[in-house]
Amino acid sequence: MTKFPSSIQNLIDQFNKLPGIGQKTAEKLVFYLLKQPKTELAAFAEALAHVKDKITYCAICQNIAEKSPCPICADTKRDSSTICVVALPQDMIAIESTGDYQGKYHVLGGNLNTLDGITPEQLKIKELVGRLASGPLNKEGEITPFTKGGSGGIPKEIILGLSPDLEGETTILYLTKILKPYKMKITRLARGLPMGSDLEYADEATLSNALKGRREI
Amino acid sequence: MTKFPSSIQNLIDQFNKLPGIGQKTAEKLVFYLLKQPKTELAAFAEALAHVKDKITYCAICQNIAEKSPCPICADTKRDSSTICVVALPQDMIAIESTGDYQGKYHVLGGNLNTLDGITPEQLKIKELVGRLASGPLNKEGEITPFTKGGSGGIPKEIILGLSPDLEGETTILYLTKILKPYKMKITRLARGLPMGSDLEYADEATLSNALKGRREI
Repeated sequence: MTKFPSSIQNLIDQFNKLPGIGQKTAEKLVFYLLKQPKTELAAFAEALAHVKDKITYCAICQNIAEKSPCPICADTKRDSSTICVVALPQDMIAIESTGDYQGKYHVLGGNLNTLDGITPEQLKIKELVGRLASGPLNKEGEITPFTKGGSGGIPKEIILGLSPDLEGETTILYLTKILKPYKMKITRLARGLPMGSDLEYADEATLSNALKGRREI
Repeated sequence: MTKFPSSIQNLIDQFNKLPGIGQKTAEKLVFYLLKQPKTELAAFAEALAHVKDKITYCAICQNIAEKSPCPICADTKRDSSTICVVALPQDMIAIESTGDYQGKYHVLGGNLNTLDGITPEQLKIKELVGRLASGPLNKEGEITPFTKGGSGGIPKEIILGLSPDLEGETTILYLTKILKPYKMKITRLARGLPMGSDLEYADEATLSNALKGRREI
């Protein structure tokens, strides 16, 4: 079978490895790139080759960052009496973009998923529990009780900012069991009708949750 | 608004520029790549940076190739009395993969599209007409009449291997007008029911074409 020239086929194969990108999409992308100037391709290649160079994980919240602790964990103005647990860095960015949350975060690195073989050991659950157990050390080297603005200790509230899908719900159940012994409030994000949606077309589970979670005006 | 670390944001922006890849898909791809080993990223970057280095266009069929003339145009075993006109290199690969075509090709580089501003001048139509007008030169420097296996001259048949969509049909109409004066057979690919399809769900235009193009068994 006649194929594309090897340099093109090679790049198609590379794109084809990415999740959700099949053979045809990979071909389309490569032929689009072939029409771009060489400087564009060089910039893309540069970004690709060096994306991991400056990246580390924040020792506190486990988020990807350029240095540890990350800007949010290092920010003493943020309320560390609340920790929002999210699955992915993207979820943290989504919550940050609301501008409505001033607490700290903890990034698990995914959700529990038995089908994909993602077990609690692969998520940063141990690190989350570690944050709860050890408060900041005082001058005498003793663990101090929780203080506003500190980076450790038992917070007042843990928000489980996980998606209400199968994997998210599984993770919420698991975390609730793990976190129950600590005397703190554990909350989850409200489930209900999304803004702009049409009640008529809402599925039963969403509508049922919206009813159960109804609030006085 | 808190953003991703700059090296990650930079790569997200690069992916976001590609056609059909939005912000969320770009993020998903970059976080997938972050989990890959550095050698993988380096190989991808290398493929990207050098994809255009060895690529040229075949002076005869206008296809992308590593050298000109391309392997198909240089292959004297192929029947050059038939030229199949296709829009893109991918279309040529698709036809080659059937194994049923032994003629030559001509790659237009796209279809006419008034909305996207793609005019006949931007396609390799001039080059196609050039192939018809000039046969190969003989030893005396005169244009020889068409010979089997030669690279020029008036072929017996031109197959318009273009998609039966709006742009393809426009291109077929335009090319037919241009090519009519040359005394040769001009054909187009059959339109009808695709293999494995269900007659009940075929659209009217497809079924109408299948009826018009019916063949005796």
